[in-house]
Amino acid sequence: MKLLEERIRKDGKIKSGDVLKVDSFLNHQIDVELLEELGKEFYRLFGQEGITKILTIEASGIGVACITARYFGCPVIFAKKNKTKNIAGDVYTSKVESFTHGRVYDIIVSREFLLPGDRVLLIDDFLANGSALMGLIELVRSAGATLVGAGICVEKAFQPGGKMIRDMGVRVESLARVASMSEDGSIEFC
Amino acid sequence: MKLLEERIRKDGKIKSGDVLKVDSFLNHQIDVELLEELGKEFYRLFGQEGITKILTIEASGIGVACITARYFGCPVIFAKKNKTKNIAGDVYTSKVESFTHGRVYDIIVSREFLLPGDRVLLIDDFLANGSALMGLIELVRSAGATLVGAGICVEKAFQPGGKMIRDMGVRVESLARVASMSEDGSIEFC
Repeated sequence: MKLLEERIRKDGKIKSGDVLKVDSFLNHQIDVELLEELGKEFYRLFGQEGITKILTIEASGIGVACITARYFGCPVIFAKKNKTKNIAGDVYTSKVESFTHGRVYDIIVSREFLLPGDRVLLIDDFLANGSALMGLIELVRSAGATLVGAGICVEKAFQPGGKMIRDMGVRVESLARVASMSEDGSIEFC
Repeated sequence: MKLLEERIRKDGKIKSGDVLKVDSFLNHQIDVELLEELGKEFYRLFGQEGITKILTIEASGIGVACITARYFGCPVIFAKKNKTKNIAGDVYTSKVESFTHGRVYDIIVSREFLLPGDRVLLIDDFLANGSALMGLIELVRSAGATLVGAGICVEKAFQPGGKMIRDMGVRVESLARVASMSEDGSIEFC
């Protein structure tokens, strides 16, 4: 998607350790008008699939998931990273390894919201090593729901997550796929 | 706001320890159509105030902040609870005590996104003890930005946060104010 690639070229910042910062428009400060265009594009790609739920993971997936859900007319569920007093008992759980935080954590979703009859679209801001997406896929499978696919804003295609998950037969649509990038600011898209 | 009060009566669940669960429509599963109505109401209340940024806190404030920002035509910033590799250096920070998680944590926002010229509307899903809102107010003050007010979805008016923050001279608009509730399911609004 040209609009997103151009925005990444303009406002993205490349840091050491393969870090692509897009926090001026996607995952700290959020350009909601941009998100509307991303949401429309996800709807163009998945709008005929009878989606009943959009599933994402806190925190940075929530904005794009909510704006996208407007076009699909379905609810959003966000998987939570910490078990709190407010979610007890009947949950599905899986594990996610965070590249950013350098640790493994549990993610959970209440069983009452993810049902066997659901047709689920996963939405997230980033796909790199694929750990978050794998965790979400496991939640969908635990619920016996149908996984329709995953809509990703930015995929770092030089990291293994995208290939791994597509090789499992999951439809993954990434709106910007970074083929390579370097700290001098150069970035190439697939 | 009648729509939200009715939804809380219908789908909210009251648990021991003054916990009001609204996770079927507001902060785990999210009814985006409802959020659009809340966003419109926040715009009706604050639309004349020249808002330039909406500031919220991860995770459950992000959805309503993003949907609300569509009406204001401004970006959202969400304060982060953990210092990650992706946010380094120049941040404003404050402390929040979590009633739900039973601990104190730091919240941060990058200095580059919260500017002295900004007119800031705070948005959050809940107001109870007021600790999260106090943390956000401190971030706005640290930046030298103008705090226009706070838009809250659900205020537990029998807890001290709302009075404390209004007594500081901050305009707080809560769309549903719970006067009392009990575990037998009864709930009264102000």
